Amino acid sequence: MGLNIDIGKLRTGDLNLITDVSGIMVGHSTLATGDIQTGVTAILPHKFNIFEHKLLAATHVINGFGKSVGLMQINELGTLETPIILTNTLSVGTATTALVEYMLEHNPSIGETTGTVNPIVCECNDMKLNDIRGLHVEKSNIFEAINNAKEVFEEGAVGAGRGMRCHGLKGGIGSSSRVFEIGDDKFTLGTLLLTNHGRYEDLVVKGENISEKYPNANISEPDKGSVIVIIATDLPLNERQLLRVSKRAIVGLSKTGSFIGNGSGEVVISFSTANTIPHNSKELLDIKRIGDDSIDIVFQAVSESVYESVLSSLFNAETVIGKSGYTSYSINDIIENKKQINGSMIK
Amino acid sequence: MGLNIDIGKLRTGDLNLITDVSGIMVGHSTLATGDIQTGVTAILPHKFNIFEHKLLAATHVINGFGKSVGLMQINELGTLETPIILTNTLSVGTATTALVEYMLEHNPSIGETTGTVNPIVCECNDMKLNDIRGLHVEKSNIFEAINNAKEVFEEGAVGAGRGMRCHGLKGGIGSSSRVFEIGDDKFTLGTLLLTNHGRYEDLVVKGENISEKYPNANISEPDKGSVIVIIATDLPLNERQLLRVSKRAIVGLSKTGSFIGNGSGEVVISFSTANTIPHNSKELLDIKRIGDDSIDIVFQAVSESVYESVLSSLFNAETVIGKSGYTSYSINDIIENKKQINGSMIK
Amino acid sequence: MGLNIDIGKLRTGDLNLITDVSGIMVGHSTLATGDIQTGVTAILPHKFNIFEHKLLAATHVINGFGKSVGLMQINELGTLETPIILTNTLSVGTATTALVEYMLEHNPSIGETTGTVNPIVCECNDMKLNDIRGLHVEKSNIFEAINNAKEVFEEGAVGAGRGMRCHGLKGGIGSSSRVFEIGDDKFTLGTLLLTNHGRYEDLVVKGENISEKYPNANISEPDKGSVIVIIATDLPLNERQLLRVSKRAIVGLSKTGSFIGNGSGEVVISFSTANTIPHNSKELLDIKRIGDDSIDIVFQAVSESVYESVLSSLFNAETVIGKSGYTSYSINDIIENKKQINGSMIK
Amino acid sequence: MGLNIDIGKLRTGDLNLITDVSGIMVGHSTLATGDIQTGVTAILPHKFNIFEHKLLAATHVINGFGKSVGLMQINELGTLETPIILTNTLSVGTATTALVEYMLEHNPSIGETTGTVNPIVCECNDMKLNDIRGLHVEKSNIFEAINNAKEVFEEGAVGAGRGMRCHGLKGGIGSSSRVFEIGDDKFTLGTLLLTNHGRYEDLVVKGENISEKYPNANISEPDKGSVIVIIATDLPLNERQLLRVSKRAIVGLSKTGSFIGNGSGEVVISFSTANTIPHNSKELLDIKRIGDDSIDIVFQAVSESVYESVLSSLFNAETVIGKSGYTSYSINDIIENKKQINGSMIK
Repeated sequence: MGLNIDIGKLRTGDLNLITDVSGIMVGHSTLATGDIQTGVTAILPHKFNIFEHKLLAATHVINGFGKSVGLMQINELGTLETPIILTNTLSVGTATTALVEYMLEHNPSIGETTGTVNPIVCECNDMKLNDIRGLHVEKSNIFEAINNAKEVFEEGAVGAGRGMRCHGLKGGIGSSSRVFEIGDDKFTLGTLLLTNHGRYEDLVVKGENISEKYPNANISEPDKGSVIVIIATDLPLNERQLLRVSKRAIVGLSKTGSFIGNGSGEVVISFSTANTIPHNSKELLDIKRIGDDSIDIVFQAVSESVYESVLSSLFNAETVIGKSGYTSYSINDIIENKKQINGSMIK
Repeated sequence: MGLNIDIGKLRTGDLNLITDVSGIMVGHSTLATGDIQTGVTAILPHKFNIFEHKLLAATHVINGFGKSVGLMQINELGTLETPIILTNTLSVGTATTALVEYMLEHNPSIGETTGTVNPIVCECNDMKLNDIRGLHVEKSNIFEAINNAKEVFEEGAVGAGRGMRCHGLKGGIGSSSRVFEIGDDKFTLGTLLLTNHGRYEDLVVKGENISEKYPNANISEPDKGSVIVIIATDLPLNERQLLRVSKRAIVGLSKTGSFIGNGSGEVVISFSTANTIPHNSKELLDIKRIGDDSIDIVFQAVSESVYESVLSSLFNAETVIGKSGYTSYSINDIIENKKQINGSMIK
Repeated sequence: MGLNIDIGKLRTGDLNLITDVSGIMVGHSTLATGDIQTGVTAILPHKFNIFEHKLLAATHVINGFGKSVGLMQINELGTLETPIILTNTLSVGTATTALVEYMLEHNPSIGETTGTVNPIVCECNDMKLNDIRGLHVEKSNIFEAINNAKEVFEEGAVGAGRGMRCHGLKGGIGSSSRVFEIGDDKFTLGTLLLTNHGRYEDLVVKGENISEKYPNANISEPDKGSVIVIIATDLPLNERQLLRVSKRAIVGLSKTGSFIGNGSGEVVISFSTANTIPHNSKELLDIKRIGDDSIDIVFQAVSESVYESVLSSLFNAETVIGKSGYTSYSINDIIENKKQINGSMIK
Repeated sequence: MGLNIDIGKLRTGDLNLITDVSGIMVGHSTLATGDIQTGVTAILPHKFNIFEHKLLAATHVINGFGKSVGLMQINELGTLETPIILTNTLSVGTATTALVEYMLEHNPSIGETTGTVNPIVCECNDMKLNDIRGLHVEKSNIFEAINNAKEVFEEGAVGAGRGMRCHGLKGGIGSSSRVFEIGDDKFTLGTLLLTNHGRYEDLVVKGENISEKYPNANISEPDKGSVIVIIATDLPLNERQLLRVSKRAIVGLSKTGSFIGNGSGEVVISFSTANTIPHNSKELLDIKRIGDDSIDIVFQAVSESVYESVLSSLFNAETVIGKSGYTSYSINDIIENKKQINGSMIK
């Protein structure tokens, strides 16, 4: 949010954040002390008990060199039943346990009169800026991120994004949204990305290669990162359609120059807030969904919103000095004269 | 149908055929002259224009050593929009063209004002009994099978099943059905199989190994076959649930002793007649489906119906003498004293 | 080939065609008379008997709204055993039968002493320019395309590409290649595309939106098309790695502005000529493949080669007047002053 | 191991355990005090540093109603790089963190000079016998299980199997193996199962329904469980072939009467010890694998070994009294007259 770059043709939501989809809230817990530059971001999919009122969801693995937790059950049952937690790769276990504890606390039936619960945790590797071997994320950080969740949230070098790098620059959390009509109805689609992927030499903003305009020998490195893409919409889509939507995230990633490198866990999770599925559903359900012949505008919205989210993660991130003094530069500090790109004023 | 073996615990439909699911019709065209022992079977999913009123569907590949046509689009869009044609492996092209012609004739809009059409053709290899290199199936055979479609149809060595062998014996077309309740409502699930898989030495009927009781050195060969499983139900299931149901077909196949050999194209297609999806659907749709917590009885129904369909294909098949005098024996001619298996009288 | 646009950073092969991968040959059969604007393109993967000497291969479905034949067995066994045929959607059956006949003729063992054969046929829908309902492609066209195969072949509105449209303009066949080193060894990767996808308003060439520079109200239409991507390389990759490579094709497609619309069958088939797998392989095989930690340059090569292939299909296509006088314009006839795009001279 | 039931036709290995595959070791940590009936089982795939010398591997999800960790990266890269940990569903987070710590300790390069690590943790739900909400498994239990690993290990109600139930009876850890020849060479395939699936009424042993012979109204319940299947072999199979092998596990599960219920996380992980893949592999690798035309005997071995592993988990399990006095009975205590099933003496 807050960029003055026009990305694509569709209108953004009021906040230009994933929280433009009504009910969604996002919270961070940030650790930023010396060698410890990491954190946790929590996405709460709606304001009710998500275990009791599940949402239709889908996952798509663009590149599976990653360690996300919980995708298998979404694929099988088509439902999301917990908040989504983002953190660093080696803290996935801690985040999983914390999310389980959070769900147990709010749902006394889990493990007693009903079955278990499927926690969703996604990750990127922040080992350059952060002492990832130190396992510094604690369960309290997950609880804090959940409790901090609100509609207006920070982007850039915060929460799980604290130690992430994107296209050789400081990345992290980026979010955007698009509004569109189908028939007479208005719908919103929003995306939140944890960006940690790409090479500096490939970064393109508005058709312009940044590394050619601002060459910097120090920040060129192989693509070793990853990206997590969360897509939310209030449009009635079923689990198959959410999968189709998820598969278009890569289009937005490609726009900034990524070619989806080998060493990269690129995972998409999508959900729709339009239908809720009760826990232990034995009855006949009535599910609303659009016809697929209206879906093109949704694909376009995803492409644009993911594209802008990558840029938003870059332009909202400050320069961070982390582990052993390693410095990851903000694009704002790289682009001279703050900052013209292909004729647009940035910020 | 018509076996006196009790398979499983659920009740069968009136016909004990896939056509117990209301609206489904099945037709055959059989070629049975000397070296030519092959044919075509058509499954019509309902009595209306299937292109205009598509059905929710799913496919599952148990083993992909096969050449079926049309699965990809079912996977993407979750709908079935043509009859399903079964034939021999090398006649898939002819069947595809014939099915396209049939659809063009009944739908002037295809290729003009709307897009194209996704024909569904599945196959097994009948090269031992049939001169498969001769490509003897003609377009007229596909039209004949479609036009012959009716509720009460033959099983065994007919239609696409004419040249097929199963567990070393004469196989072909087998069908069965199960009836069950969810809440206060009664539903039917039916299956139709084209059986061409398995080894004689592994065949088990009612827990009894047939080859041990009726040893016959001549009919032991490697598993080189395949099996096509069509599952239909009037229960409201969506495309994800139909996939889950499809994955349980293998349980029924395992009951008769198959271990799903290498050289085997084993493909499952499932559809539900409970919702129809209009062609060119742009509107908001209202889809009924059961909750997954009621689905266990459907899995049980599939397992039992597939199991019985394999047996039905065997016990309904006559001995066939085909290419170069090769003889494939009916299980009825193998089992002495017509025929006691583990205390049950067969037929 | 033959564009003077520099796409990406890697060097092209000598021909800048898929046939830069040694052994590959491509042939066309073109039908171009009045309402009949269609055809066939054949890709021969090497110069030996491909059924006896199979190649490692993989397939990836970007969007499954298509009717390609033969993908399932490639997925299961990881091998390609026939030439690849491209044609229009409704001629897939004819092409399948013709390819089967071609394989039977060259392999007397098929259907006799060995099993059957898995023909590979891919398609796009050319119904705007071509009387697709007329089913004008005949088996002789497939044989002709195979027999015409050679190293230097035409691109644009030829073969299967005759009736195809891409980003609202005349598309069809486009090809390109890239050369790169891994360790001390030089390898080649080539791509051939049948382009029939995208909207005019989204078309970007070298970062410049064409429809904004050359507005043309007549050529804006919804994305109803599809694209087939064939990737070949002499680099030793196994079937899993070829799948990873296939998944990067979408990056190249995104560069020209596609967002992978709903009504689009987008299919990728990749193969490597580095290992051959004998038919009926029972022995221990020795397979060479690179380590995945060297694969990034391959992903980059695919991205660049696919990107350039889209442009090559556009810039090599002439304007075609087809069914009922419908005209699809060459980009060369749209771009005034033949033709500067972002500072590059085209052609 | 140790049953006197003959399952199938292939010979078992010397121990009739997964550890008949040379190099594999298995260890348990068991918690068995009052309401706490749970534990951890560790499978060490070979005796060297598995992170430095990875093994080819594949995963297959039979039913995804489960919470296993690490499958995605195996699917992408085809390699296993840690021991496999089994535990209860809600302890997956703790097990993940412990396994990460174990890997960090033995590999100082992780998170420093190389990337991260992909821990493999699988689970079943033991909430009936165990106070699963108490999260009683601690990191020390994972370390203990790893350190306890040896060739000869216990089966039944031990380790992760302590609280599991199978077909209404006491289940847990079961293992078996098969030996077979391909060409002149002898190979071994072994399986280890964590069984927690199935209904009493469906349990079949040697063709005989146990619940009919030994009716027991108290132990009939819906199928709410799951099963984890680990398959190991010294046969050279690549990742695609290991997937094919994994898909045959369901055949063995079906033999004892499972129809793969809804509420069941059924996951298969397979690996071969025949090739090792170095970490950070940039070179050309030479991979040995069998031709697929020899694979049928491997499929048969899996089917038999999985089948016997289910029985072994039952017959090796003692009756356990757990949470709130809930009792899960050993099959040995159910079958009267210790114990004839279809003419075989058990044990």
